[in-house]
Amino acid sequence: MSNIPNNIPEKTIERLSEYRRTLLSCHEQGITHVFSHVLAGIHGITAVQVRRDLMLIGFSSDTKKGYDVEVLIRFISSILDSRNPVHLAVIGMGHLGQAITKYFNGKGLNLCIVASFDIDPVKVGTDIDDIPCFHMDRFEELVEELDINIVILSCPTETATEVVLPIINAGIKGVLNFTSKPLNFPKGIVVENYDITTLLEKVAYFVKENEDNNL
Amino acid sequence: MSNIPNNIPEKTIERLSEYRRTLLSCHEQGITHVFSHVLAGIHGITAVQVRRDLMLIGFSSDTKKGYDVEVLIRFISSILDSRNPVHLAVIGMGHLGQAITKYFNGKGLNLCIVASFDIDPVKVGTDIDDIPCFHMDRFEELVEELDINIVILSCPTETATEVVLPIINAGIKGVLNFTSKPLNFPKGIVVENYDITTLLEKVAYFVKENEDNNL
Repeated sequence: MSNIPNNIPEKTIERLSEYRRTLLSCHEQGITHVFSHVLAGIHGITAVQVRRDLMLIGFSSDTKKGYDVEVLIRFISSILDSRNPVHLAVIGMGHLGQAITKYFNGKGLNLCIVASFDIDPVKVGTDIDDIPCFHMDRFEELVEELDINIVILSCPTETATEVVLPIINAGIKGVLNFTSKPLNFPKGIVVENYDITTLLEKVAYFVKENEDNNL
Repeated sequence: MSNIPNNIPEKTIERLSEYRRTLLSCHEQGITHVFSHVLAGIHGITAVQVRRDLMLIGFSSDTKKGYDVEVLIRFISSILDSRNPVHLAVIGMGHLGQAITKYFNGKGLNLCIVASFDIDPVKVGTDIDDIPCFHMDRFEELVEELDINIVILSCPTETATEVVLPIINAGIKGVLNFTSKPLNFPKGIVVENYDITTLLEKVAYFVKENEDNNL
């Protein structure tokens, strides 16, 4: 969309995704309007932050009644979503890969997992949570055939580097990397390194900080 | 430790955790020294950023030979880790909970999962990946008994709010929340909301951005 403002900060994009999920559940509950301070309270941030985020994407609201839930959902979706559903593939159908696949199945998002890849003969050729599992050898061929744009990397950390080249060659545009191996891709491929250990060590550090400060 | 600098930025803490994992694998490979630009290359950042992070924690190195890997591992550990191993519990032993448990088992981190909790009678009373699974009813009792400090929340999003009170009452100090429900806890409890959908929608957004900019 030509009217989408550029250079929206990453953190704002994250919060927009979070606001939308909250708004969707408000909508399910029949709530038609919500105030910025309510949205802020749910997300543990300030109303100023909420208003700033929505101002950044050019959304203004009737402050008397609060934001119109349906309108705001549509507006955020017009910013976040592509016109067409985005096809994803999961590489590595171990426990994490299967957890993620189950998690997304039937969530009705604009993102849908259309294929998974593994090298385990027990998994290859079967459907796991209604998603066909193919051998990694067929990755490049199927990425083109199934118009896959983004991959979720949930293979063992030890094998993470082996899939980098196939991902590049297949023309994948985005990678969500769950392995403990930081991966570098050429400019033009969006990579989100999303390591659970790091987040947990971060929580543990700030817990220790609080204790040291006798909080 | 009294000499730990306070107010280290969250992002620096995250990178320190990532540096340490890289340094540990360097150490396994028999590499004794590493230059900041090498560390930077692995993590896709600038050498200036690496040096700034290490300066922030008061670490300086012989730039002729680069950083001493063993010394730097010990130094980062002295910042990140508690003196004693931190006991974790997983709430919700569905696919994600089991994936996380398997992921951490035998990783030899300072963080160890000592118990899991669920309400599914099929799981309760069994060992899942060598971790005993208890009924959520026994949460507060066992948190004290097993000295559990941090919980990993991998229950269904629908039930996330039901565990907030038990977590507070049990005196849990940190929460890593994998549900799609943002949770608020009283000051003094560290919360990391870590929703997969958000990260994926973020990747999808920046992929769309790149396409719109014909990258």
